[in-house]
Amino acid sequence: MKEKLKNDSSKSISYNLESLFNPQSVAIIGASSSFGKWGQMVLSNIIGGGFKGKIFPINPKEKVICGLKAYMDINDVPYDVDLAFITTPASTVPEILESCADKGVKGIVLITSGFSETDEAGKELENNIVSICRERNVPFIGPNTMGIISPYSDLFATGTHTRPKKGTVAFVSQSGNLGNQLIYWAEQQGIGISLFVGSGNNAMLNCVDYLEYLEYDEHTKIIILYIESVQEGRKFLETASSLNKKKPVIVLKGGHTKAGAAAAASHTGAMSVETSIMEAGFRQAGILSVKVPSELLDLSAGFSSLPVPKGNRVGIVTLGGGWGVVTSDECNEKGLVLPEIPGNIIKKISTYLPPFWSKRNPVDLVGTRDLEIPIVAVEELLRWEGIDAVISLGIVGRLELVRSLVRSTRRVDPSMSAAFLDKMEEFSLRYEEEYIVSIVDLMEKYEKPVVGVSLTSTTEGTVRPVPGKKYSGVFYQTPETAVNVLSKMVAYWGFIKSI
Amino acid sequence: MKEKLKNDSSKSISYNLESLFNPQSVAIIGASSSFGKWGQMVLSNIIGGGFKGKIFPINPKEKVICGLKAYMDINDVPYDVDLAFITTPASTVPEILESCADKGVKGIVLITSGFSETDEAGKELENNIVSICRERNVPFIGPNTMGIISPYSDLFATGTHTRPKKGTVAFVSQSGNLGNQLIYWAEQQGIGISLFVGSGNNAMLNCVDYLEYLEYDEHTKIIILYIESVQEGRKFLETASSLNKKKPVIVLKGGHTKAGAAAAASHTGAMSVETSIMEAGFRQAGILSVKVPSELLDLSAGFSSLPVPKGNRVGIVTLGGGWGVVTSDECNEKGLVLPEIPGNIIKKISTYLPPFWSKRNPVDLVGTRDLEIPIVAVEELLRWEGIDAVISLGIVGRLELVRSLVRSTRRVDPSMSAAFLDKMEEFSLRYEEEYIVSIVDLMEKYEKPVVGVSLTSTTEGTVRPVPGKKYSGVFYQTPETAVNVLSKMVAYWGFIKSI
Repeated sequence: MKEKLKNDSSKSISYNLESLFNPQSVAIIGASSSFGKWGQMVLSNIIGGGFKGKIFPINPKEKVICGLKAYMDINDVPYDVDLAFITTPASTVPEILESCADKGVKGIVLITSGFSETDEAGKELENNIVSICRERNVPFIGPNTMGIISPYSDLFATGTHTRPKKGTVAFVSQSGNLGNQLIYWAEQQGIGISLFVGSGNNAMLNCVDYLEYLEYDEHTKIIILYIESVQEGRKFLETASSLNKKKPVIVLKGGHTKAGAAAAASHTGAMSVETSIMEAGFRQAGILSVKVPSELLDLSAGFSSLPVPKGNRVGIVTLGGGWGVVTSDECNEKGLVLPEIPGNIIKKISTYLPPFWSKRNPVDLVGTRDLEIPIVAVEELLRWEGIDAVISLGIVGRLELVRSLVRSTRRVDPSMSAAFLDKMEEFSLRYEEEYIVSIVDLMEKYEKPVVGVSLTSTTEGTVRPVPGKKYSGVFYQTPETAVNVLSKMVAYWGFIKSI
Repeated sequence: MKEKLKNDSSKSISYNLESLFNPQSVAIIGASSSFGKWGQMVLSNIIGGGFKGKIFPINPKEKVICGLKAYMDINDVPYDVDLAFITTPASTVPEILESCADKGVKGIVLITSGFSETDEAGKELENNIVSICRERNVPFIGPNTMGIISPYSDLFATGTHTRPKKGTVAFVSQSGNLGNQLIYWAEQQGIGISLFVGSGNNAMLNCVDYLEYLEYDEHTKIIILYIESVQEGRKFLETASSLNKKKPVIVLKGGHTKAGAAAAASHTGAMSVETSIMEAGFRQAGILSVKVPSELLDLSAGFSSLPVPKGNRVGIVTLGGGWGVVTSDECNEKGLVLPEIPGNIIKKISTYLPPFWSKRNPVDLVGTRDLEIPIVAVEELLRWEGIDAVISLGIVGRLELVRSLVRSTRRVDPSMSAAFLDKMEEFSLRYEEEYIVSIVDLMEKYEKPVVGVSLTSTTEGTVRPVPGKKYSGVFYQTPETAVNVLSKMVAYWGFIKSI
């Protein structure tokens, strides 16, 4: 699908990463039946994730692993192998790489650790395997990677068995551990992924390669990166900057403070000096830089589900006054403005609310149980040219509170009909679902985002897709998250407009 | 239990709030069988919450409500009534208050809305009922309150049926809606509550009264407040300042920005001018001021479960390097320092870890599966006088990932013994529980906090109590939350030390 050539003198080799991320067949060298070993975790995850291609466990001591025939050696496999995972000890890796090359394997995910992250001998061994793979033209990810996830190929190949759904967010993480947790959060929050790469030690392939691949990957619309140090710093900035014009690139640079840089130095190699240059480069290129991992996920949910706001003017619709106040404060802190609402809109909304309603932005629905007004208020604001985005607080999320009330009433009131209570709960559930559909339709109609805040922690996740629709509902638990995401989306829009 | 006299000229009356918060009997005037009405929600919550005293529904049109005999009028009740909840329309309230006074009711929770929050007529009606209750010496909370929760009296009397457990955190909220959601979060996170008061319009009793009560309430050790405007501003600051020396007072002032103040003005009355004076007062009195509601809960969990750190020197123990880097960055941003660890501690820890471990702070356990070292590392740091607090990342929380692996393996590997997999899961669960016990013991032994970060969202909640122990385990989902809480606890310690 895509080919690319490096301008970099040190490695002007072209690698086709297609077989790494969308293989037809995979081998797991070091596959195991022993619970908790890497060769067991990765193999069982690949099978459990429903990979449709062929799967070949390689282990000279076993006949069958996870119900699949095991092979002594990769060269015993009587079929082509696109991608090999290696989990055997570091000392065995050079020889295995040679046999993979002999077999015609097109890419390697080198999970094995014990290379440059350990000591001088490890560093030498790493240089050695890079030489082998350059010579044999077999690109590898890692070493010391936690694996990859390619949902569009149903390939879930990490040690952690979390399986986010298909989506538009690509995630490259230099820290495997951190990457694993964020993938877990993505699954929990319903954020769809196009690709996850644990880049490990970046010995052969590195972040630049992945960004170049992602530029043309049709599934990827947003890129999130966790990096501590970068090889080819200038090239990285150039590539990321160019990519950011088409697809938002959101970066967390671990080690952006003195204490963090010192920690990173012991983790992946001293690169702290680069932080200020890097940050300046990000700013210039309009690349969004965040401080903590949770922001990477929050922004993923927003960018992948909502239209980008075309300005910083926000309308707030809230079920309760206090939350409107808190959200206004947060908007103020983050550079979002709350315009006064014109009389004709006030008049329209007034027909639904008691006379003492706020009559201003935030629109305080004073705890109304009117079923129409929450959506009417949102639409009236979206329709108005004076507003670029709406924050909707407390409608979706109320279900959780209704459920508590139903549960409790069922228990204490013998006279209450069970069928009636079922109906109440069902009604609340349907109302939330219909509200989400309406919101999604309105976003498509007006091409402006509506950012939801649930205020409860629901099991439904942050992202609430509606089948067949361009956008999805997004409901963060707290207003500060919604405001932070919106402010960063506004910043990205500012950058795009300026180029 | 406590009596108090006001110095304030406008209301130098003494109210005993004991019967409001710990009544022996309650009446619900406006009690109803109609699902979703205030009189139904509050009554069924009181019954469902297990209130041990007598409960009298008052409704002239019903004979039995929720299985309880209903009375025409409060004066028909043939027993003493300590506390009355009123949910009937505003116009009926003056007469009802008079009959409550006739009955000898000792306190009122006036849920009814339609007073000063609406219009001039409402304001007049509010003045009117204040006069009545001052004259008859019946203190009332509200009007326009969402209710109260008094867990030590098993009294859950809000419209929202969430029931946090008994604890040491008292919460006074001027916004009912916001208060309800935070109580829901407290229940979800396992944060124990000593009292919740939705203060509503603060017409008769106000925040000063509640603070005065809480000073002597034996269950309350921490006070969190959401306020927008305050009556008796100077008195409030004096009372809060004095209280903060004994029990930490944590305040969120809604409307601390221009936009927020404008929103608050339309919500509860114009008071924006006070914000800067208020904030200066908080600073001077060492009162912790937070920006968003979630911080109120985060700090509640920390202050109620952990010893206060006696300095800003932090040791980090992490299962993965990336999280250690991110946590170091956050510490740096929030004024916490990461001292270098002395050689003897490095040497001790080295006996458990591979030779390439970080050998510095953060202590990176490089994904070890050794069962002893996570707790050994924490204890070595706590024992050292160069450290005031420890942050432990990724041990508690790993269970969620083990569960995914077990579930997945069970499904894909026919050769794997089900009993063995059960044992693995059981073992992980027990290991986490034992780790929490060890952490809690260590906190008691060294009187230094260990702040946990789970990195997963578990169903177990943030606070993990250990029966019979002074402290509880606290496991936030993200490092930024742990660092923020720790930095604010350090600030409180700084204030306490200075007085």
